[in-house]
Amino acid sequence: MMKKTVLATAILTLSQLPTALAPVAAEEVSTERHKVSINTLASGLSHPWGMTFLPSGDLLITERGGDLHKVSLDGTISDPIKNVPEVVAERQGGLLDVTLDPDFANNNMIYLSYSEAAQDGGTGNSTAVARAELAGDSLQNVEVIFRGVPKYESNAHFGSRLVFSPEGHLFITLGDRYSAMDDAQLLDNHHGKVVRIWPDGSVPEDNPFVDRDDALDTIWSYGHRNVQGAAIHPQTGELWISEHGPKGGDEINISLAGENYGWPEATYGVDYDGTIISKKTHLEGAKQPHYYWVPSIATSDIIFYTGDKFPDWQGDLFVAALRGSHVARIDLEGERVMHEETLFDEAIGKRIRDIEQGPDGYIYVITDQPKDAELIQIKPAN
Amino acid sequence: MMKKTVLATAILTLSQLPTALAPVAAEEVSTERHKVSINTLASGLSHPWGMTFLPSGDLLITERGGDLHKVSLDGTISDPIKNVPEVVAERQGGLLDVTLDPDFANNNMIYLSYSEAAQDGGTGNSTAVARAELAGDSLQNVEVIFRGVPKYESNAHFGSRLVFSPEGHLFITLGDRYSAMDDAQLLDNHHGKVVRIWPDGSVPEDNPFVDRDDALDTIWSYGHRNVQGAAIHPQTGELWISEHGPKGGDEINISLAGENYGWPEATYGVDYDGTIISKKTHLEGAKQPHYYWVPSIATSDIIFYTGDKFPDWQGDLFVAALRGSHVARIDLEGERVMHEETLFDEAIGKRIRDIEQGPDGYIYVITDQPKDAELIQIKPAN
Repeated sequence: MMKKTVLATAILTLSQLPTALAPVAAEEVSTERHKVSINTLASGLSHPWGMTFLPSGDLLITERGGDLHKVSLDGTISDPIKNVPEVVAERQGGLLDVTLDPDFANNNMIYLSYSEAAQDGGTGNSTAVARAELAGDSLQNVEVIFRGVPKYESNAHFGSRLVFSPEGHLFITLGDRYSAMDDAQLLDNHHGKVVRIWPDGSVPEDNPFVDRDDALDTIWSYGHRNVQGAAIHPQTGELWISEHGPKGGDEINISLAGENYGWPEATYGVDYDGTIISKKTHLEGAKQPHYYWVPSIATSDIIFYTGDKFPDWQGDLFVAALRGSHVARIDLEGERVMHEETLFDEAIGKRIRDIEQGPDGYIYVITDQPKDAELIQIKPAN
Repeated sequence: MMKKTVLATAILTLSQLPTALAPVAAEEVSTERHKVSINTLASGLSHPWGMTFLPSGDLLITERGGDLHKVSLDGTISDPIKNVPEVVAERQGGLLDVTLDPDFANNNMIYLSYSEAAQDGGTGNSTAVARAELAGDSLQNVEVIFRGVPKYESNAHFGSRLVFSPEGHLFITLGDRYSAMDDAQLLDNHHGKVVRIWPDGSVPEDNPFVDRDDALDTIWSYGHRNVQGAAIHPQTGELWISEHGPKGGDEINISLAGENYGWPEATYGVDYDGTIISKKTHLEGAKQPHYYWVPSIATSDIIFYTGDKFPDWQGDLFVAALRGSHVARIDLEGERVMHEETLFDEAIGKRIRDIEQGPDGYIYVITDQPKDAELIQIKPAN
């Protein structure tokens, strides 16, 4: 059984009410460079976390509770796809990101990140990544290609975004598990790391720590807090990431091979009463942020816009924000930040969990609510 | 006759009133990195425009109406210094910036920028720069070392800041005179230019256009709108400038020899109803802004903080704002913008015209009001 979105249902139900009460599905807003139309395409999702476009133009959308749906732009939400790996759906944990294999058109492979319980009857959990073949309404040949170590008792800071490099590596961004934050500076674990593997789980020979006995060879960069956003820069091919700071200190970083990004030794975060915490903002040998926010906007995913529907936004970095309930547009000149614009804080005004550019050149976001989360399309106003 | 500031007078007058009514001269505010104390040192100034510290610790402060005062940190404002050049004090024109000769300790020379009427009985005015010896309460040997050409009938967009390069050149920043904005792209005039001369008015041999017959040899860079802020980057030695955009599009630029900064062919400014104006944001061959604001904060002067009183602010760019009634702190990593913080919008909340770092490492600003403009000191809170 297919279910239509709550919004679509509401339109049917309300169709006999006075016109003034009819729900508005589209809103036009002016921004600095483009007038846009905000269109709610689907509603009724529960904490959707990741999304990706299929060649058909439909989306795969994860729900943190553990379901994976196919969602059409007409608002149709499929029943849960079968055979998704079992997840630990507690607080920030659950079914997280989804992405397609670069060769999906030929192999139908998708990748899912999720919080996975210990396999051996032990305690704790960690972020894992599975790949599987999408066959109709079910996954087949599900294979776990990455398991973060150690399994750890926490239900916070799992990362995680999945992004393919231009050369076909899979980047997996991870979190520090909160209470294990000091591990982010140590190379013998996956807490607070960005990982680079091949799609079959094997380790690229040129990973930065493959020759070090005291380091995990899957690690690409370290000293991160909770990396919930990732995108490849369209010109440089480098991996850009967003990470949550503590109270303040959300960061954009360019994740480079073997580099340390300082957490938790250095941060721009401030304490909950607004006073400066004792930590440094600079750590010898570590990278400074490429850009940062105080107070936190609570960054989630990021994209570089490369489409033709918004010419003045080409090359810009778009950062979805949970607490900020907006999208930050970062106007870049090459890699350099020239300007920040706050978008859709009034027109959407909800926690935004994921952002993608559609194959149609429009921008899509999903909001983060327990029952009525939405898929929203942003396109040029007529 | 010395005049005490209005504030100081008020304290004396109110000293017999109940304590609760006593004026508060200092306010403590928290910022992201430092707790600071905001202290109004002097009041009663009329549209002060430029200030500079004397070796004595006193300040020279211009008033746009044409007066130059010596102001002490105890609030004492001297009578106007005699023999200041006659200025065209209309709207944005008048007595503008003041700076000391790098060898002031030996030669007592100061430099003043101002709007100067046509000398030959003709009409119009332009920004001029005079140098003179400060001798007690009077200027001596006043000599005009620069006159903008052409003289033009406008009372808007004169620039102007005076900054010495590490090599001893004098940079003079200019405006496009508003109705002559198209001149900013032409090299046969001084509208919308940054000029570089020697302190005696002579032209440096390595100025970028000295070999071109169709260009004024004093021009350093062009395509500017109204450059009201300038400072030398403490590491690179390069000239950074702030310029007003139209409605939106205030810019920070690094002014480099012979470069075009695009105005009015390219701008991030928007029209008064919020819609995009037809102009481009990019001009082939011109530099993009280093950083920009939409909407405008109305940038005035800028400094790089290099003192020891605010360790976490070292190397940061501070931008005074008129419309914004605040100081923007731009956290730089080298030349790259990492973050912007809005400072003092509540604690000061007045149009700020000039900002300087004192020899004591504190930060000083002057506000922009017709009668009650203030000199304010910002120092670490106890």
